[in-house]
Amino acid sequence: MMIEKRLCIVGLGLMGGSLGQALREHAAYVVGVDRHAATRRQALADGVVDFATADLSAALDQTDVLLLATPVKSILNILEQLPSLKPDGCMVMDIGSTKLAINETMSQLPPSFSAIGGHPMCGKEVAGYQAADPEMFRGAAFILTRSRRTTQEIEELALSIIKLLGAKPMFLSAQRHDQVTAAVSHLPYVVSAALTRAVSKQHEQALWQISASGFRDSTRLAGSDPQMLLDILLTNRTAVLENLQIYKRELEAVIGMIEEEDEASLAAWLSEAQRQHIAYRQEKDASG
Amino acid sequence: MMIEKRLCIVGLGLMGGSLGQALREHAAYVVGVDRHAATRRQALADGVVDFATADLSAALDQTDVLLLATPVKSILNILEQLPSLKPDGCMVMDIGSTKLAINETMSQLPPSFSAIGGHPMCGKEVAGYQAADPEMFRGAAFILTRSRRTTQEIEELALSIIKLLGAKPMFLSAQRHDQVTAAVSHLPYVVSAALTRAVSKQHEQALWQISASGFRDSTRLAGSDPQMLLDILLTNRTAVLENLQIYKRELEAVIGMIEEEDEASLAAWLSEAQRQHIAYRQEKDASG
Repeated sequence: MMIEKRLCIVGLGLMGGSLGQALREHAAYVVGVDRHAATRRQALADGVVDFATADLSAALDQTDVLLLATPVKSILNILEQLPSLKPDGCMVMDIGSTKLAINETMSQLPPSFSAIGGHPMCGKEVAGYQAADPEMFRGAAFILTRSRRTTQEIEELALSIIKLLGAKPMFLSAQRHDQVTAAVSHLPYVVSAALTRAVSKQHEQALWQISASGFRDSTRLAGSDPQMLLDILLTNRTAVLENLQIYKRELEAVIGMIEEEDEASLAAWLSEAQRQHIAYRQEKDASG
Repeated sequence: MMIEKRLCIVGLGLMGGSLGQALREHAAYVVGVDRHAATRRQALADGVVDFATADLSAALDQTDVLLLATPVKSILNILEQLPSLKPDGCMVMDIGSTKLAINETMSQLPPSFSAIGGHPMCGKEVAGYQAADPEMFRGAAFILTRSRRTTQEIEELALSIIKLLGAKPMFLSAQRHDQVTAAVSHLPYVVSAALTRAVSKQHEQALWQISASGFRDSTRLAGSDPQMLLDILLTNRTAVLENLQIYKRELEAVIGMIEEEDEASLAAWLSEAQRQHIAYRQEKDASG
């Protein structure tokens, strides 16, 4: 399948770079917008884009479909400028990590725009174009959130792109998306970062040498792009705080049980966590 | 290299089973002690042990070297019974997850025993003999803690075993071991379990379908054996609580920054975690 329209990918980092690499052979023409000159040079050298620029407004002139792959606040900023930058309108899809604020801003676009929100549930703890991987989306859930500007045309295009990526489309309201990802994605980011910070306070030369795969895996997310995380935490603040409070109560409960050496409660607390982990793994294995 | 002595491995779960499989071709005779009949049958069928029994005292009669691979409290229990079960003494090594309580109990053994504490820094989130893997120890740090009963003979045997496993020996005091592992190992266990419990409170049918590799990795440790974890938390209570308090302060700090939308502090908090993560990865990569 070929996308005959002219694509413009804004942000050629981990996510946008991966998107560009995955779509390359299926897209007639792609322009890449990125503020880093080294990234633009590399994407051009790789043949991932036909043209690379730091100037969004110049790129927009020749764009039919705009794919926004920057951190959330930058996506919001671009959406707000779009009506003046591209008065005739175009098709817009974003792949930002939170969806409610983006959805509201998308819905304010003039009717000349058709727009849909997207969020591929995949990633890596390494930021930047160098870490891009066209296979990253394969098998991942790709959430789509409809806005007031979602037309059948942009929805069909989004589904075609998701199919090309090998991901699994799933429609969810922006609000529900932000609630669920606050739990399964944003909370783990904060937990991993807090864990990395707490353990790094230890004064033992051989600390990292002693650490095993359990530490590696439970702190992996701490390596994620701080700007991406910052925008996530600030644009999904209420749901993230709710989940942090639920999490903090679990932590306080287990601290109390250890303090009081309440062996029976502690055993039940740990066993329930193991049971939930097994239930999660089974459902994950079953859904392939 | 062959171990010409008669080994007895107590506990043929994930760790003891892996130990047995790795040592099999290097040990003249191995008896396995496990309370689960199915595990005994399987270890015997695999040829990992020459004889399998649930009766430790019967096995001890014919044992030169006792390898203890059960949860910590069971190791302590066996060490306390050893003088009456084996009046003539023998060589003892354990691979329990905490070392201070074990070290103190080991030091109380009569001088007919020679004993050393050990802790291979590796594992899996799946418990039981089925998950055993003789390659699990390869490249891992294997901590040795000397007790009042440590002789040159048991130390040399321990180093030989570690060499056969492909692990890297590292001597540490029992106290320092428990302080460091409270941070790099025990804290991550609690954090993963609390995260699993908090997220499992979400009422969204597609919760696990939406979750990605970040959630998988940051919660993996929650699948660990609850009995092993219980014994860790109760026998390393002080150090674990200290680390939980340090961790809780990090969590409260970031909650406060999100509540107050303190963008500058939050950006600095996240960037420092990323920097620490990169430093950890670089040292880990350098130490191979």
